[in-house]
Amino acid sequence: MQSDEFHVFDTTLRDGAQREGITYSVADKLAVARLLDQFGVGFIEGGWPGALPKDTEFFARAADGELKLQHATLVAFGSTRKAGVKVEDDRQVRALLDARTQVICLVAKSSVWHVSDALHTTLEENLAMVHDTVAFLRAEGRRVFVDCEHFFDGYKLDRDYGVRLLDTAAAAGADVGVLCDTNGGMLPMGVHDVVSDVSRRAGIRLGIHTQDDTGCAVANTLAAVDAGATHVQGTANGYGERAGNANLFSVVGGLVTKMGRDVLPDGCLPEMQRVAHAIAEIANLAPDTHAPYVGAAAFAHKAGLHASAIKVAPLMYNHLDPAVVGNDQRILVTEMAGRASVELKSAELGVDVTSRPDVVSKVVARVKDREAAGWSYEAADASFELLLRDELGERTDLFAVESYRVIVDRREDGAMVSEATVKVVAGGERVISTEEGNGPVNALDRALRKALSKVYPRLAQLELTDYKVRIMPGKAGTDAVTRVLIETSDHTREWTTVGVHGNVIEASWLALHDAVRYGLLGESETAS
Amino acid sequence: MQSDEFHVFDTTLRDGAQREGITYSVADKLAVARLLDQFGVGFIEGGWPGALPKDTEFFARAADGELKLQHATLVAFGSTRKAGVKVEDDRQVRALLDARTQVICLVAKSSVWHVSDALHTTLEENLAMVHDTVAFLRAEGRRVFVDCEHFFDGYKLDRDYGVRLLDTAAAAGADVGVLCDTNGGMLPMGVHDVVSDVSRRAGIRLGIHTQDDTGCAVANTLAAVDAGATHVQGTANGYGERAGNANLFSVVGGLVTKMGRDVLPDGCLPEMQRVAHAIAEIANLAPDTHAPYVGAAAFAHKAGLHASAIKVAPLMYNHLDPAVVGNDQRILVTEMAGRASVELKSAELGVDVTSRPDVVSKVVARVKDREAAGWSYEAADASFELLLRDELGERTDLFAVESYRVIVDRREDGAMVSEATVKVVAGGERVISTEEGNGPVNALDRALRKALSKVYPRLAQLELTDYKVRIMPGKAGTDAVTRVLIETSDHTREWTTVGVHGNVIEASWLALHDAVRYGLLGESETAS
Repeated sequence: MQSDEFHVFDTTLRDGAQREGITYSVADKLAVARLLDQFGVGFIEGGWPGALPKDTEFFARAADGELKLQHATLVAFGSTRKAGVKVEDDRQVRALLDARTQVICLVAKSSVWHVSDALHTTLEENLAMVHDTVAFLRAEGRRVFVDCEHFFDGYKLDRDYGVRLLDTAAAAGADVGVLCDTNGGMLPMGVHDVVSDVSRRAGIRLGIHTQDDTGCAVANTLAAVDAGATHVQGTANGYGERAGNANLFSVVGGLVTKMGRDVLPDGCLPEMQRVAHAIAEIANLAPDTHAPYVGAAAFAHKAGLHASAIKVAPLMYNHLDPAVVGNDQRILVTEMAGRASVELKSAELGVDVTSRPDVVSKVVARVKDREAAGWSYEAADASFELLLRDELGERTDLFAVESYRVIVDRREDGAMVSEATVKVVAGGERVISTEEGNGPVNALDRALRKALSKVYPRLAQLELTDYKVRIMPGKAGTDAVTRVLIETSDHTREWTTVGVHGNVIEASWLALHDAVRYGLLGESETAS
Repeated sequence: MQSDEFHVFDTTLRDGAQREGITYSVADKLAVARLLDQFGVGFIEGGWPGALPKDTEFFARAADGELKLQHATLVAFGSTRKAGVKVEDDRQVRALLDARTQVICLVAKSSVWHVSDALHTTLEENLAMVHDTVAFLRAEGRRVFVDCEHFFDGYKLDRDYGVRLLDTAAAAGADVGVLCDTNGGMLPMGVHDVVSDVSRRAGIRLGIHTQDDTGCAVANTLAAVDAGATHVQGTANGYGERAGNANLFSVVGGLVTKMGRDVLPDGCLPEMQRVAHAIAEIANLAPDTHAPYVGAAAFAHKAGLHASAIKVAPLMYNHLDPAVVGNDQRILVTEMAGRASVELKSAELGVDVTSRPDVVSKVVARVKDREAAGWSYEAADASFELLLRDELGERTDLFAVESYRVIVDRREDGAMVSEATVKVVAGGERVISTEEGNGPVNALDRALRKALSKVYPRLAQLELTDYKVRIMPGKAGTDAVTRVLIETSDHTREWTTVGVHGNVIEASWLALHDAVRYGLLGESETAS
């Protein structure tokens, strides 16, 4: 278990699950909890037992042994007792005990406006609800944290009521009072002021929970820590309602690498990137490529200016060694780039060009020419690697294309038919193959791989997993060209290739052709 | 023009263009600049003339009258003179003058480490480079701002060198010294401290430029303003290298609605959401649904707890009235799907629906259905107007399509042939027409218009001026669909239409079909 000195409290599975589009199964929740534990968080808020059946089941299965945690403590979330109800008669409070967690996080209203106009009760009854529920759960042996909803908005209306609520919770045995910026309208300067003031006046350990409606959730969290909070709440990748919650990865990144707070168990920080991506997979959301610390582009460099300096000293243009958070430095080859980028990119791909300055020159020239014509290699590593290996004199073409034809028909009855015919020579043999598809590119892909699969059976494994099209307006006096990016998978790795042409079918074909050539790298030519 | 008291300085087209995956054409850059002007920014940094040919062309076309700005001043970006070169002999500096902008933003190294190890010159020569270049441009009548690269990292190494550089720039006539967190490693507390200290010691107006590598770019910018900066740099939607730049929409949202700074011209703030989405379209990136202020989910509510409270008082669970930034509180498929939007949009298109609530209901339902299937009318006014006129019972179909066929051939000699055959009935006559084109869509367009031009000669004037393709990921369990946007011109006006289908050819056809139907609006059916 982590030391109790500083709490990294994750609420991905409770507050984070309110993000539009996220629906976890119980198995998903168990998998996310395991990943969060590998990342080393101190607390995992698993859900609201009694209110949501799926959450009730999650806690039951966790308690029955399906969730073994190495670092984290599981937390159940719920409300205080209802107004005018005895705590021991409150079904929701009972459900919290039934969840069998060591820690319970209660939510209480701390803004006078919300107490009167949303809860429709008196300020005193609201305090009594907090007191009774905390005391009851403490008597049952539970550790209790209290989320003070709308704390910051409430503070603007009444500087004292929130402090009274915190003191009430403390007196009843709660450990932490969490100041929540529920509507997310705060900025760091204001958070700093409020947390500083409250930490002087309230007799309880303070936590912070922020939402990202001003784009400042991470900064607000760090400002609260600077002002004395020792418990931070956040979610994986910032998932949450509206603009989301504080991104726990950015919060922890900032705490450890910028503020020198040692808030994770040893060896956990480099898990950050892997855990972030794995949770995105489970949530069925594309990982944010531009996320701080963990995004695929977080340490990627495009400008040639920077790439040449990076060769001198990586930290000149990176705020951090990417390995610290399990990420990688990536170099993008683009129109802005020069020799340094090509050299670094080649090294990254495992191709040694250090002894071949002539090849580097040729590659730079070819990339520049092609990018002037609308190509882009920055997202197409596989096409770049083929170009590089071509220039190094390696054999990358194991088949020859004679011709192809695509026919797309919309018939009188509205039915669509797409058909492609490909003529290739592979392994010394001429093959003609025709296939249908749900569109012209799909038909071409199927026809090409069918034509080659007799000679190169491993191509049967390939799958086109993503297809992107962009029209690149022509330079003055020239026609627009179409740029196609294709992502291919062989179920152990993925690669991306690019094709550019005035004709969308030919652009797609060029990208497909590279995708298949890349899939055959390392294969030797087979004579049939 | 905006007052000079506070500078909202946009660098979407310069620093923001370094985001992975963004490649603007010159026409794109002009369109983005117009949108930024509508949003009311004070300065638009358009690029680096002389270094990037596309940027040189952009400034030339802007100066030649293609860019009329109502609020903003255009800015050219470039380096100071090279070490050991006379400023009047520096080609890059000359290119800055040739860009014909009133304002020039120079970048200078302000960290002692970068001066010695990246620029390989002395600290004194670096100051002289700044002095000479600023003085030279001032003598040519330009207003000059200076971006101090790596200011914050440099400050950690030497608290005084950056201040000397600022004073040098001021003495030579520069107006603003912009403190840049180039590597993006700062947190707001540190930014506040440095800006406060430097504003006491340096004799120049201070600006702030941040990157989002800690997830704090917006907060860092606001902290700098709190500490005295009166010039903020940022990019639309936070586009930029690595984790991106400060999101200008979040920065302005925070300044105006949270810090009470009136930094935009009257009436501009509600343009925020529209401008944010339109720029994403031009960049060919999906708008971030969870972006603060402007995201489709920024004011959306999922929690039942909140939904009931929202009925009582909207601001109980929103940090802001969404209309202030042009957003909407309701959960909509898109901004178009509400009755009010349909009514407004219809009025804008000159179609009166006020007396036809039944039609409005049907249009809302059709738009919702279609948008659920991947359609989007946000950028396709003409397709929306056709849908609206259909529901009003107007005749919008002056011809019937029987079938079409497209053949794309790549021959043995590498020649590409694209041929389309279209069968239509128009003016009581069945016409079969075959045409070639430089691609399948061009061939289809030509064949369709040829088939109809005998009956409707005005179609000969039409020209397909832009073609955009985006792959829309399928909802759970369905295949991806392709969305095509086509812009058509008849040389007096332009209109945009949309088509969506799993097959890229059919999606293009649907958009073409609408484009031609729209071109015929107002025409009566002609019997041949």
